[in-house]
Amino acid sequence: MISWKNLDTLQAYKTLSALKGHVDLTDAMAGEMGAKRVREYSVPMAGGLTFNYAARPVDGEVLAALKALAAEAQLIEKYEALFNGEIINTGEKRLVLHQLTRGQLGKAVVVDGVDKRAFYVKEQEKAAQFAKRVHSGEIANAAGEKFTTVVQIGIGGSDLGPRAMYLALENWARQNGTFKMEARFISNVDPDDAASVLKSIDVSRSLFVLVSKSGTTLETLTNESFVKDALRKAGLEPARHMVAVTSETSPLARSSDYLAAFFMDDFIGGRYSSSSCVGGVVLSLAFGPEVFARFLSGAAETDKLATNPDVTKNAALLDALIGVYERNVLGYPTTAVLPYSQALSRFPAHLQQLDMESNGKSVNRFGEAVAYPTGPVIFGEPGTNGQHSFYQLLHQGTDIVPLQFVGFRQNQAGMDVDIQGSTSQEKLCANVVAQIMAFACGKKDDNPNKAFAGGRPSSIIIGDQLTPESLGALLAHFENKVMFQGFCWNINSFDQEGVQLGKVLAKRVLAHETDGALKAYSELFGI
Amino acid sequence: MISWKNLDTLQAYKTLSALKGHVDLTDAMAGEMGAKRVREYSVPMAGGLTFNYAARPVDGEVLAALKALAAEAQLIEKYEALFNGEIINTGEKRLVLHQLTRGQLGKAVVVDGVDKRAFYVKEQEKAAQFAKRVHSGEIANAAGEKFTTVVQIGIGGSDLGPRAMYLALENWARQNGTFKMEARFISNVDPDDAASVLKSIDVSRSLFVLVSKSGTTLETLTNESFVKDALRKAGLEPARHMVAVTSETSPLARSSDYLAAFFMDDFIGGRYSSSSCVGGVVLSLAFGPEVFARFLSGAAETDKLATNPDVTKNAALLDALIGVYERNVLGYPTTAVLPYSQALSRFPAHLQQLDMESNGKSVNRFGEAVAYPTGPVIFGEPGTNGQHSFYQLLHQGTDIVPLQFVGFRQNQAGMDVDIQGSTSQEKLCANVVAQIMAFACGKKDDNPNKAFAGGRPSSIIIGDQLTPESLGALLAHFENKVMFQGFCWNINSFDQEGVQLGKVLAKRVLAHETDGALKAYSELFGI
Repeated sequence: MISWKNLDTLQAYKTLSALKGHVDLTDAMAGEMGAKRVREYSVPMAGGLTFNYAARPVDGEVLAALKALAAEAQLIEKYEALFNGEIINTGEKRLVLHQLTRGQLGKAVVVDGVDKRAFYVKEQEKAAQFAKRVHSGEIANAAGEKFTTVVQIGIGGSDLGPRAMYLALENWARQNGTFKMEARFISNVDPDDAASVLKSIDVSRSLFVLVSKSGTTLETLTNESFVKDALRKAGLEPARHMVAVTSETSPLARSSDYLAAFFMDDFIGGRYSSSSCVGGVVLSLAFGPEVFARFLSGAAETDKLATNPDVTKNAALLDALIGVYERNVLGYPTTAVLPYSQALSRFPAHLQQLDMESNGKSVNRFGEAVAYPTGPVIFGEPGTNGQHSFYQLLHQGTDIVPLQFVGFRQNQAGMDVDIQGSTSQEKLCANVVAQIMAFACGKKDDNPNKAFAGGRPSSIIIGDQLTPESLGALLAHFENKVMFQGFCWNINSFDQEGVQLGKVLAKRVLAHETDGALKAYSELFGI
Repeated sequence: MISWKNLDTLQAYKTLSALKGHVDLTDAMAGEMGAKRVREYSVPMAGGLTFNYAARPVDGEVLAALKALAAEAQLIEKYEALFNGEIINTGEKRLVLHQLTRGQLGKAVVVDGVDKRAFYVKEQEKAAQFAKRVHSGEIANAAGEKFTTVVQIGIGGSDLGPRAMYLALENWARQNGTFKMEARFISNVDPDDAASVLKSIDVSRSLFVLVSKSGTTLETLTNESFVKDALRKAGLEPARHMVAVTSETSPLARSSDYLAAFFMDDFIGGRYSSSSCVGGVVLSLAFGPEVFARFLSGAAETDKLATNPDVTKNAALLDALIGVYERNVLGYPTTAVLPYSQALSRFPAHLQQLDMESNGKSVNRFGEAVAYPTGPVIFGEPGTNGQHSFYQLLHQGTDIVPLQFVGFRQNQAGMDVDIQGSTSQEKLCANVVAQIMAFACGKKDDNPNKAFAGGRPSSIIIGDQLTPESLGALLAHFENKVMFQGFCWNINSFDQEGVQLGKVLAKRVLAHETDGALKAYSELFGI
């Protein structure tokens, strides 16, 4: 029997809280003891990845407390409830089924007579078939020319995840001969966003993927109109250039405005939708459906590994628990995500949504205010760029920011140069290794301006190469981590009521139904 | 006589600290009182911009305390000392002269017999002449063809600022007929970064701008080799395709490897170098020197306005002081930068470096540890994208994050559509207005999950349009804000010792001179 309790009511949390400052990271990572930690504090992940947490502030005692917390908070039981189809998104009274888009983890989940796994697979197959027909030229423009570009129109989860995935695999696909079509993305209601994308493509050979679960997202519908205008002005018929990704009940679902429609449902939250048709259509078009299938397999394998109740063998669970320890016991308000891979340049922006929109909540599942911090602020840029930017504060600032590194032994494009005795790839790897140690151990110096306090925790996810499988594993790892943390905090990680008020007020401004400061601000903008 | 004192030793700071929680933002912004604040809490900036701080937690009493703090901390006197050529970067014993790249604010600054303003102007003129010769085709490739693309090779301040500026003005320049050349940027030592850029351009018609003040930045030299390899493989002579931006004493300064060299010096920090030749060469090539001159004029005017000792008439000073109040008295550890302009998509990444590298310090100017928080974590993405991403946490998370909005009445590209009774631009403006009020005043609701606590502070910088002048004003505003905050915290905002340790350790890894955990991590990467 699952019980939903606040973190600060758990006995294990009291035990954990008593371990504040228990591990001196600088000491722990020094000498051969440190080397032993690096070799031992490691968890295999899917897609050939490894989660190494040697430089996070834990030891046997802290790990035991985290294990007790996982058990008392029933984290694995709650995950099982989720993938077996219980209503975990209680606020909106919805199931949470994004894991089903990549595999069947538990029992069949049937809603209104529909097996949901079968439903998601069917839509993926539709997307795969559609992509093949586009690639073969069977589906072409009015002049019979093949489509060369796919443009995703969507915002939030319909943009950030798919865009990050596209950038992550673009070079890999070119190098591995599976690159099919350029992808571009239009998201912002700022008309300069759509204008800029449209100017850079040949609209006559572009296919537009309109993504909105509800079919009512104002930014997306506005950009759709913008694009349709451009198509018409170019003498093209919009319906020959557009497909929809939406829910079956949306106004877009059975419209003749689209070449085809692909379906998701209310059980896939926007920020969890990259492995549904929201990511599947654009990525299958860009790289071929086989690549997308490999991405899904990495995610499915990750989901399976996350069912392991042994915290030292379950990377997502362990990552989540250490994060809770850092946030609630050690009091760190921010986390940086630092991929040493240019291909992951927009992955931090995806994680920013995934994490902050899921766990940036102040009330528990019963609507009661919680008395402890929940989700941290997440930010990040690729290393080595970040090193030459904000790492100064991370090393020597007054606040400690836990760090999540990601790195790969090989690059994707297969081009490299040897300068001063090492390749660029070796330099990249040497830098991330050096940073972990600089953060953990610091450096004493007689000049305090040149001294590094150390004690700044990090973990690293390491792989051979960023491939479809490892990308799927990476994506699912963080989804599962965020889910486990939400369970610890006893919050609903699957709604986003915090986005509503702004929408309501914006409508009021556009309808000129304002007074007071809202009216005064509107006047400043002349609207 | 200037005296450098820690913030917590100032009487005015004690007065300010007593005003913790003094303003209830939700009350202050309600009704006609709120409208009055919006109309009155406004400071004109350069470039047609306005800084509106109605929704920040200040009133007459807090402003009086901030005024007293500005006076006691001698903020204006310190700024004057800086632009008059005193050694403000004490750690490195250097002058701080980036303001001189755009105007003469105080007396002539002469170093080793050279008038520094004249030096910066001369280099700008060289860059302008060079750009004109490229645009006219006088400087062309070996086949006599005009260069069509400029590629900046640099990292940190040689990348983030110039890249943000290029993206900010690209659409504007296209619309206003001044667009000359596409610009691309290579920064990361990850070889996939350079590979990706090189695959997307015609190298035979590309001009590369190598930017490194010291001429020894490893990432940049590595990428230079990468590019030279590519040029040679294409049968091209690298020296006909490359220019250098560096200091006169660097190994790049008088090398026959470059078509031309443009100079900066040690008095221009990387993150403050966008208005020097670091930004000037690439932006003059991309948009023409006249556009870059207009950008400089907006910055120069901003620098002048920042000399005003009246805090309510000096936007940068006021912004800085309110930020210190929020950081040190109210205890907010993070700040978000949220431009409602897709053209400013990378401006937050530039500010992230500018702010965090400048003020992420733990020791004061004398090398003594400070007992108060200094620079906050800075992050941000363009609205409306952020609304559909991390705003959930900003609205309903457990931590309060002060917000800096930026918005414009008009877009740049001049394309728009009218949907549901309003244009995209109107929707964009309505959204930012709505967000300010949603954050400030929140909303009561019987369902606590749908309730918004409010009391979340923000300010907004508003302009007619993002132009070269307003972009210059925006850039300089934040530079000056960061400088004033550094003065308040009594830290050196102009060095970056925190980046050194990682470099040293990375070299050790590449030389295989490691032991302990550093060796163990290196083994994980097989290096």
